[in-house]
Amino acid sequence: VGVIDSHGYVFDARGLTPRRLVALSRAKQEGKALVDCTGGRAGTPGEALAQMAAHALERPILVDVTAGETTALLSEALAHGMDLVLANKRPLAEEGPEPVLATAAGRGRRVRHEATVGAGLPVIDTVAKLRESGDTILKISGSPSGTLGYLFAELSRGRAFSDALGEAMRLGYTEPDPREDLSGADVARKAVILARMVGWTGTLADVQVESLVPEPLRDVSRDAFLAAVPTMDAAWAARVGAARARGAALRYTADVTAKRVRVGITEVDMTHPLASLNGTDNQFVFTTRRYRDRPLVITGPGAGPAVTAAGVLNDVLALAGAR
Amino acid sequence: VGVIDSHGYVFDARGLTPRRLVALSRAKQEGKALVDCTGGRAGTPGEALAQMAAHALERPILVDVTAGETTALLSEALAHGMDLVLANKRPLAEEGPEPVLATAAGRGRRVRHEATVGAGLPVIDTVAKLRESGDTILKISGSPSGTLGYLFAELSRGRAFSDALGEAMRLGYTEPDPREDLSGADVARKAVILARMVGWTGTLADVQVESLVPEPLRDVSRDAFLAAVPTMDAAWAARVGAARARGAALRYTADVTAKRVRVGITEVDMTHPLASLNGTDNQFVFTTRRYRDRPLVITGPGAGPAVTAAGVLNDVLALAGAR
Repeated sequence: VGVIDSHGYVFDARGLTPRRLVALSRAKQEGKALVDCTGGRAGTPGEALAQMAAHALERPILVDVTAGETTALLSEALAHGMDLVLANKRPLAEEGPEPVLATAAGRGRRVRHEATVGAGLPVIDTVAKLRESGDTILKISGSPSGTLGYLFAELSRGRAFSDALGEAMRLGYTEPDPREDLSGADVARKAVILARMVGWTGTLADVQVESLVPEPLRDVSRDAFLAAVPTMDAAWAARVGAARARGAALRYTADVTAKRVRVGITEVDMTHPLASLNGTDNQFVFTTRRYRDRPLVITGPGAGPAVTAAGVLNDVLALAGAR
Repeated sequence: VGVIDSHGYVFDARGLTPRRLVALSRAKQEGKALVDCTGGRAGTPGEALAQMAAHALERPILVDVTAGETTALLSEALAHGMDLVLANKRPLAEEGPEPVLATAAGRGRRVRHEATVGAGLPVIDTVAKLRESGDTILKISGSPSGTLGYLFAELSRGRAFSDALGEAMRLGYTEPDPREDLSGADVARKAVILARMVGWTGTLADVQVESLVPEPLRDVSRDAFLAAVPTMDAAWAARVGAARARGAALRYTADVTAKRVRVGITEVDMTHPLASLNGTDNQFVFTTRRYRDRPLVITGPGAGPAVTAAGVLNDVLALAGAR
């Protein structure tokens, strides 16, 4: 029934038609602000939310598909009796004094966030089901970054680091400044979200994150960084070669238990499921009390608009009780 | 609140305590029949069901964990307003003139059956979610038999067929007569269940099933069959070797599309996820409109009491609206 962004909102109690949504999407692409169609003025997102909530909405759900700091807005939505669906990792991974999940639990509201980890892959739901059926999750090991997954798969094939990174940039797998991927910060956010579900009580600051950006290159310009990348090739080749000599491969992983969250380079045995990872695929390896000798493994594309939207839609349908 | 088997039933409207269930389980193991504790006589399962249904049960769910032909009983349960959870493949795979899913849909009742394929692995739920989010499943390829998965993994490692089969028997992976596994009938049932979910309209009789039991050995005694197994070694070694020479491995797979269901030996490229399958793991590879270039893959143990019970319990919780 409504769409809010940082510049305005639209709302129609009868529902927004697909045609209308396409028109809105076009207008957004042309840089136009969303405008209120109910007669009120376009204010802050919080004001927009309050105006929407004033209507007698049936089973209202707020879907956060931003990448912003939305915790305060989500709290307001919960106060208005809305359930939440999140594709946005930040409110869950960077929680402040008023954690969204605790606020929701206190108000008897539900929060689903499948798309925050692995996009449409059934990752969060699998964690939830394992727990609901009485299993204990001992460890989740994963490669939850398509960008870094691609990079390490290419390194395993003997490619130079600078060459693999350049190709990843050409293919559009990285952010404009690839240091945003190489820093491991995004993987750390996903790790925190998984860790909280298996009983870890720390915060993002407690995560051990291994950055692939050498200290001296973290604050230089993008161009200076890119110019320096080839100087890293020899060290990477040596590291990959040493691992191979031990029958192992390097992967950039998140390793999550109830006690410890680590994000960085891991040496995995060639027979480990992570070693066979290809392309930009994500992989999640669940070791539990029941899946102890052999883990439960989910592999597949973990990014992209269509599969992310599918994860969001499945969450909305689950909250709406569609089946 | 109740347990029914082919010899009797117990029922307590206040619920059966864990202690009581353990005692019942022990009595079963000692060969004692379940006995009615409500005062009525122990009759047929249908009569037991009718007596249970006469109580004002809240959200009643019948859970079928038999391996029997229970379609008629399930229809009665639906008529009594019960939802269904199945671990039993037969009512779904061998449906007669009154298919369970159609009967349930006609009565507005829900049926869940995660444990019928891959035990507790999120297979059926993934199919459902892909469809609910508007994706089109183009193909499901899988190795849904731990027994045959183990056998072909061992063959790939150069082991003789008779040796690999003997080891599988010693490890308890096969039925007492291993021809029940080698016939492919159980894989065919799982394939039918998946196929129906992606739009296939055939029946079990329409499935192309490749049996690993040579025609002349199908009707001989178990001992005669086992004595003849080593005579198959040379042909298997040649077949596995020829595949390896082409950079491929043999796997026993189910290949399911909306148009065709095939169960049998497949030659998969060494880079294919199925080629890296180990032990008794199951694997399911979903190729869809959205997961087309790279599939969504679920791998892990697909049999065993604990993970099967987890699949059943998750279904019960979903129907009960636990979250």
